[in-house]
Amino acid sequence: MSESIQMQGPVCPIPLRHNERIVIGHGSGGKMTHDLIAQVFQPYFSNPALNAGNDFADVNPDGHRWAITTDSHIVQPLFFPGGDIGRLAVCGTVNDLAVSGARPLYLTAGFILEEGLEVAVLQRVLDSMRLAAEEAGVNIVAGDTKVVEKGKADGLFINTAGFGLIPAGRQISGQMAAPGDAVLISGSLGDHAAAVLTARGEMGFDAQIESDVAPLNGLIEALLEAAPDTHVLRDPTRGGLATTLNEIAWQSQVNILLQENQLPVKPVVQSICDMLGFDPMYMANEGKLVVILPAEQAEAGLAAMRSHPYGRDAVRIGQVEPPRAGDQPRVLMRTEIGGTRLVDMLAGEILPRIC
Amino acid sequence: MSESIQMQGPVCPIPLRHNERIVIGHGSGGKMTHDLIAQVFQPYFSNPALNAGNDFADVNPDGHRWAITTDSHIVQPLFFPGGDIGRLAVCGTVNDLAVSGARPLYLTAGFILEEGLEVAVLQRVLDSMRLAAEEAGVNIVAGDTKVVEKGKADGLFINTAGFGLIPAGRQISGQMAAPGDAVLISGSLGDHAAAVLTARGEMGFDAQIESDVAPLNGLIEALLEAAPDTHVLRDPTRGGLATTLNEIAWQSQVNILLQENQLPVKPVVQSICDMLGFDPMYMANEGKLVVILPAEQAEAGLAAMRSHPYGRDAVRIGQVEPPRAGDQPRVLMRTEIGGTRLVDMLAGEILPRIC
Repeated sequence: MSESIQMQGPVCPIPLRHNERIVIGHGSGGKMTHDLIAQVFQPYFSNPALNAGNDFADVNPDGHRWAITTDSHIVQPLFFPGGDIGRLAVCGTVNDLAVSGARPLYLTAGFILEEGLEVAVLQRVLDSMRLAAEEAGVNIVAGDTKVVEKGKADGLFINTAGFGLIPAGRQISGQMAAPGDAVLISGSLGDHAAAVLTARGEMGFDAQIESDVAPLNGLIEALLEAAPDTHVLRDPTRGGLATTLNEIAWQSQVNILLQENQLPVKPVVQSICDMLGFDPMYMANEGKLVVILPAEQAEAGLAAMRSHPYGRDAVRIGQVEPPRAGDQPRVLMRTEIGGTRLVDMLAGEILPRIC
Repeated sequence: MSESIQMQGPVCPIPLRHNERIVIGHGSGGKMTHDLIAQVFQPYFSNPALNAGNDFADVNPDGHRWAITTDSHIVQPLFFPGGDIGRLAVCGTVNDLAVSGARPLYLTAGFILEEGLEVAVLQRVLDSMRLAAEEAGVNIVAGDTKVVEKGKADGLFINTAGFGLIPAGRQISGQMAAPGDAVLISGSLGDHAAAVLTARGEMGFDAQIESDVAPLNGLIEALLEAAPDTHVLRDPTRGGLATTLNEIAWQSQVNILLQENQLPVKPVVQSICDMLGFDPMYMANEGKLVVILPAEQAEAGLAAMRSHPYGRDAVRIGQVEPPRAGDQPRVLMRTEIGGTRLVDMLAGEILPRIC
C-alpha cells in the first residue's frame, strides 16, 4: 500500500538516531514503517494531500477530485500460488485508488531489471499485468525500464503509480469512522501471506492456499451502490487487518471493537499461523476490503459484497465505539472466551518481501 | 526518461530470442532499449496514449488534458557534483511532464531501500528532493517505502511518477517537427554524464564539471511565451542528443540536419570524451532542452531561453528537412570539414546507471 504519512503515529515512536541504519522492519508496514515516515520522511514532505494520512492523495486541481497513489513491488518469489509480481503491481495500485472511492483510470509502470533476468520471465509478468489491467479496466499509459548489474537488484522490481477520478459527493476516508458504525471484511484473512510463504518452501509441506490478489474496484462499486453512505474503505495489505484498523482508529480518533469468533480465517491459513507462531490478523492480504459504514446500511452492504466474486465470504466483524475518556484510540477484541484484549499494530517484521 | 513505446523503432530491431536474458544495454535508452520495448513490452501494452511514443501520456479524461509520466532512478553513485539521486528523481519527472507542454503539479515517490542504508544518507536525499520540488513548484503527494535485504538492491532506488495539466491550445509532441523548422539546444552537451563519471573516480583525475540536473518547466514557460508555436520539446537524457533527435526524426518522419560546429560542448567534457572515446552527442543530460520550432520564431525563442538561468548558452544547432524519397528518416551532421555524416541512435550502453 502507498503509505499514510501523519505526524502523530498511532504509537509512541522509537527515536531514530542520526547514525541509524535501515533494517528490514522499516518496510513492514507496521510500527517501524510509521516511525520512519513520521521521523524521516514527514519533516521533508508536507502538504494537505499527504498529511491526510490515507493511502492515496485526494487533490482537486481542475474542478474534479483526483486520487493519486504509488506502490513499489519487491515480492519474493516473483511467482506464487494465485498470482505473481505483475498482478500484484496492478492490483495493489488499483486498490489504493479504489478505497478512496475513486474510479481507477490510469497506471504507470516503472521496471527495475537485474542483469541476467530471463526475458521469458519478464514476458510472463507483463502478460499477467495486461490481464489484471483489463480486469480492472485501467490503462497503463506510461512506462520506464532501468537495468542494474547482476547482484544489484533481485530479478525484477515494479513500481506502479495510479490516477483515478473520485465521483462528486463521495466522502470516503480513514477520518470518517464514527461511533456506532459497523466494521465489515470482504473475506478470509492472510491468504496472500500464506501463499507466498508456501511458494518460498518455508512450510516444509505444500499447503493448498492461493493468494487473494485481486482488483477490488468492481466489488467497491457494487458495495457503494447498496451502501452509499460508507465511511471508510481500506485494503489490509502489509501489517494485516490489525495494522489497518489501528491506522483508522487513530485517524478517526475512535475505538474499534472486534469479535474474535467472527474473524474469517481458512483452516489451512490458521494451521500455517499456528505452526509458525503468526497471527492471521497481522498477515498481508492483497484482495480483501475493510468496510466501515453506518450500522443501518451494514446488511445491504454485506448482501452486495456477497453477490460479488471477490466478496462472497464477507462478514461483519465488529463495531466502532467512542474512545475512552483520556485514553488514546484503540483496537480491542472480544475474545471467544469472553475477555477483551488490545490489538496493537504490527511491531516488527514477520514476513519481509511479501508485496 | 520514461519511454516512448512505438511498434516501429527507428532502427531494424535485433530479434530477441525467447531464452534471451536482460543485459545492461537494455537500459541504455538507445537501440537495445527500443528493441526491448518494441518486442517485449509493446505486445502486452497498447493504448493511444502509450503508442504516441512520447515520454509522457497525454490523456483527456475530464475535459482537461493531463500529462502522466514515470521514471525509476538507479544512478550510481547516489551523490555527484551538482546533484544527487533525489534531485535527479524530481527533475527527471518534472522535465518529462514539462516537455509535453504541461504544467507539472503532482509527483509520487516510491523508495526501494537496501537494508543497511544509513538514515543520514536517506535524509540528505529527501532534503534534496524537497528543494528540487520547491524549485519546480510541484507537490509530492503520495509515497511508498519498501526495504530489501542487504545485497538485493544498491543503497537506494527511487521511482517518481508525475501528473501535470496541459494548457488548452498547446500542441507539442515528437510528431510535430516539420521541414523548415529550426533545432535549438538550451546549453552544453554531456555535463551530467561527465559529472557522474568523475564521481565514480573513473577519470583518474578530478575534472571540474557539475551535472546540469535541473527542472526545466520555468525555462519552457519562458520559451513558450516568446515562441508559442513551438512544435517539439524534449530533454535529451539517456542516449544523449543523438538518440533523442533520432526518436523525433522517426516520430515526425523527417530528416534533421545538424551543424557540427554549432554543438556546444564544454572543453572539460570534450577532454573526458576524447580520453574515453565517447561522443558528447551520446552523453546523458539532465537539464538540457531540445526545441524544434518554426524558423521565424527561432530568434525570439533563443532570446527568451538565454534570459533564463538554465538557458543562458542556448544556440541553434540545425534544421528539419524533408526525408529523402524512398529513404527512412535520418539525423545527419554537416561536419566542420564540410562533409555530411549519419548520426545514428546509441547502439549499446556506454554509461550504465547514469540516471
